Amino acid sequence: MTDTIIRPAKKEDMGAVFKMIKGLAEFERMPDQVMIDETVLMKDGFETDSPAFSSYVAETDKNTIVGYAIYYTCYSTWLGKSIFLEDLYVEPEYRTQGIGKRLFLAVAKLAHETSHRLDFHVLSWNPAAEFYERIGAVDLTKAEKWHLHRLSGDALSKLFV
Amino acid sequence: MTDTIIRPAKKEDMGAVFKMIKGLAEFERMPDQVMIDETVLMKDGFETDSPAFSSYVAETDKNTIVGYAIYYTCYSTWLGKSIFLEDLYVEPEYRTQGIGKRLFLAVAKLAHETSHRLDFHVLSWNPAAEFYERIGAVDLTKAEKWHLHRLSGDALSKLFV
Repeated sequence: MTDTIIRPAKKEDMGAVFKMIKGLAEFERMPDQVMIDETVLMKDGFETDSPAFSSYVAETDKNTIVGYAIYYTCYSTWLGKSIFLEDLYVEPEYRTQGIGKRLFLAVAKLAHETSHRLDFHVLSWNPAAEFYERIGAVDLTKAEKWHLHRLSGDALSKLFV
Repeated sequence: MTDTIIRPAKKEDMGAVFKMIKGLAEFERMPDQVMIDETVLMKDGFETDSPAFSSYVAETDKNTIVGYAIYYTCYSTWLGKSIFLEDLYVEPEYRTQGIGKRLFLAVAKLAHETSHRLDFHVLSWNPAAEFYERIGAVDLTKAEKWHLHRLSGDALSKLFV
């Protein structure tokens, strides 16, 4: 068991966070889809008056970043501004210590204090889905039949040639 | 067939847009979930230096607003800033004239010019899913097993009492 703190991320954490973004993409079995790098994260999250995302990190007592959560403000035409949790990740060797839960709760607390709603996508085979169900999150794909669609790459380009 | 133009929405369109938001919620069989009103749309979309959403509307030659699309900037840790299409709606009596397609293409064009990706949620029983498939959008819930999850209401509150 490692002593860790959960704190808002700083610009200088983005190198460690980007390394974990690649780790998460591998866990999700889509490692080739990462197109950005840490300088983009620094620019979009810190070097601007309107950050495109915010982030929490988990830091050990040896000052190692071992987990992160990235979220942004989305917009619901039913509710107004709301929070979308984009990524949640803990390094494999630091799992089963409750760090992921603490990262999740840090973002959920913000959602609780602002929009009273937190949305996120989960791969159906991800074991974390069990945790989300246990705390009362609803799988809206199952409950209401919402499907995530994406138009990108050649399919998107060819609409405008 | 009515002559319509597709144009960026103005603050004074929000009354008409809000009426259609309620129409869409009814179509989606969830009319009780609309918690905001047009003043919130005006505030979040227009009376701020960082609009939380942007919008296109379809306007007839009689200056009636008969459709809208609302989108916002989301954040992908694989791609950076990207566009999420939150709502797309055309009044029932103006459907099957291609207005919905033109609204969709207006947002898709922006996505094409910026992030090269457009994401959106579709109810699996919505006939529009066929159009999205035809133009090459991928149902990521089917293809990759992404499920939309939501933590809200009492389930969210009780984590923090």
